[in-house]
Amino acid sequence: MSVIVVGSVAYDGVETPHGKIDRMLGGAATYISLAAAYFTPVKLVGIVGDDFAAEDVDFLASRQIDLAGLERVPGKTFFWAGVYSADMNDRTTLRTDLNVFADFNPKLPETYRGERYLLLGNIQPELQKSVRAQMPQLKLAGGDTMNYWIGDFREALLATIAQWDFLLINDSEARMLSGEQNLRRAAARILKMGPRTLVVKRGEYGAVLFHGDCHFIAPGYLLDDVFDPTGAGDCFAGGFIGYLAGEGFEPSGASLDMAALRRAVIYGSVMGSFCCEKFGVDRFRSLTRAEIDARFQEFQSCTAF
Amino acid sequence: MSVIVVGSVAYDGVETPHGKIDRMLGGAATYISLAAAYFTPVKLVGIVGDDFAAEDVDFLASRQIDLAGLERVPGKTFFWAGVYSADMNDRTTLRTDLNVFADFNPKLPETYRGERYLLLGNIQPELQKSVRAQMPQLKLAGGDTMNYWIGDFREALLATIAQWDFLLINDSEARMLSGEQNLRRAAARILKMGPRTLVVKRGEYGAVLFHGDCHFIAPGYLLDDVFDPTGAGDCFAGGFIGYLAGEGFEPSGASLDMAALRRAVIYGSVMGSFCCEKFGVDRFRSLTRAEIDARFQEFQSCTAF
Repeated sequence: MSVIVVGSVAYDGVETPHGKIDRMLGGAATYISLAAAYFTPVKLVGIVGDDFAAEDVDFLASRQIDLAGLERVPGKTFFWAGVYSADMNDRTTLRTDLNVFADFNPKLPETYRGERYLLLGNIQPELQKSVRAQMPQLKLAGGDTMNYWIGDFREALLATIAQWDFLLINDSEARMLSGEQNLRRAAARILKMGPRTLVVKRGEYGAVLFHGDCHFIAPGYLLDDVFDPTGAGDCFAGGFIGYLAGEGFEPSGASLDMAALRRAVIYGSVMGSFCCEKFGVDRFRSLTRAEIDARFQEFQSCTAF
Repeated sequence: MSVIVVGSVAYDGVETPHGKIDRMLGGAATYISLAAAYFTPVKLVGIVGDDFAAEDVDFLASRQIDLAGLERVPGKTFFWAGVYSADMNDRTTLRTDLNVFADFNPKLPETYRGERYLLLGNIQPELQKSVRAQMPQLKLAGGDTMNYWIGDFREALLATIAQWDFLLINDSEARMLSGEQNLRRAAARILKMGPRTLVVKRGEYGAVLFHGDCHFIAPGYLLDDVFDPTGAGDCFAGGFIGYLAGEGFEPSGASLDMAALRRAVIYGSVMGSFCCEKFGVDRFRSLTRAEIDARFQEFQSCTAF
């Protein structure tokens, strides 16, 4: 089953303790699509300028990523630059040039509208809502958001996520959205806002899945080297939705759901961990499905007791 | 099998967002002993002043904790006071009055010296070493330390832990001791300093066990309310050594060890989580072994996939 992925396609400038890259392929929809495409075909929705390189188009197209929904307009592609702290737990944004992304108004090609799985990257909540409205046959929809929308576009965001099956956010965003410091109580509040499933990402510490009365705690994979954490959260989302769509997951009884959702969270963690092993999307140039499944097994052997 | 527990017995003043207690029973050896005593008999080694209350003696003695090694001398018991941040991830020390603890020089009663299991709380490394030398029949010895000893008493600390089977420290201490930022590489270096087993505590995020070439990642239990995190790390240590001693654990083949050590880490996490549910040691006044085993099962159901 194909998954529709909507969000930014960008160029990034990144500096980490391991080095500096002035300009490389990035953007949430790029990372999500690359990760999800290991599990299922992807149909991407995004916008780029006329500076978007042919080699980047070719790379995405080589990975069962349909680019019919990647709009190309005059102007420059979204550019973001940032620098990471020594322990890479914090980053400072140096530059955000929205460029053509400022006018992004996602319209799904006819060939996309009948699909059943939707992952909305972090964009304006009303745009996220408009995409969902273009997909009458959805089985599973959800996505990401960020502190800016939670703080300044709260009503629009609440109206948007009320229609979602799942929400994927980080721990500080979960606390901000719910007004609760304690994660368990924060989750209980958020699950009353609409989504049946909440995944709280905790960076290097893994993720927690909340679904009905159940929760599942997944630790982070212990990497030998973190080269560049950019995109890891998006790759988590890609692994999560990619696995569920690839399996043809249909929301049903809570206990049945929970087993598949747990595996989806682990595949999300696996994809996030690979993302950090090289700069930008570089790890995905060589990564194989066999490596992914081996790491899934490694997760099992590092956590069972 | 009894476990020898050595460390501070104190009174604490604690303020958290949930309230303030001016003076209550505390100290590393107190927390370790109370947690371990759910699994196996404990023989405590510590020092208190003549202000140490009869009700506190009675409480400890009621929990299969042998107090023959609790020295009582003229003067005041060690007093510590601190205040926690709103999210309880940081704390500020307001007062440290070592009092009689300044002259602590642990001497084991004859009835202690033949025991096989030893847990050394965070005290001066040379004192830790002197205790180990008093126990010729040890099967399993290890303990805790802190940034102060790592920074200012490095040589003494290295000589001490070289004789230990396991070391239990938090993540910033592991980074400081090893000089490595990456946790996996930090652990590899520390395992070359002597201990065959390293447990890195990560507060609310759980713990990671390193043993030979294997590692085990245990998530933190998600509490509905954290009232007071004081002593949680010590209770982790108590659950860890208590479980191993109670089972008569003998270091042997790596893979056999690993299964028991994994369970010990989970029991450690369980005990740390209960500790946070009330102020000071209060949760241990009512906690039952059945509740402990139920939470161990809950850990299994929240982490299996």
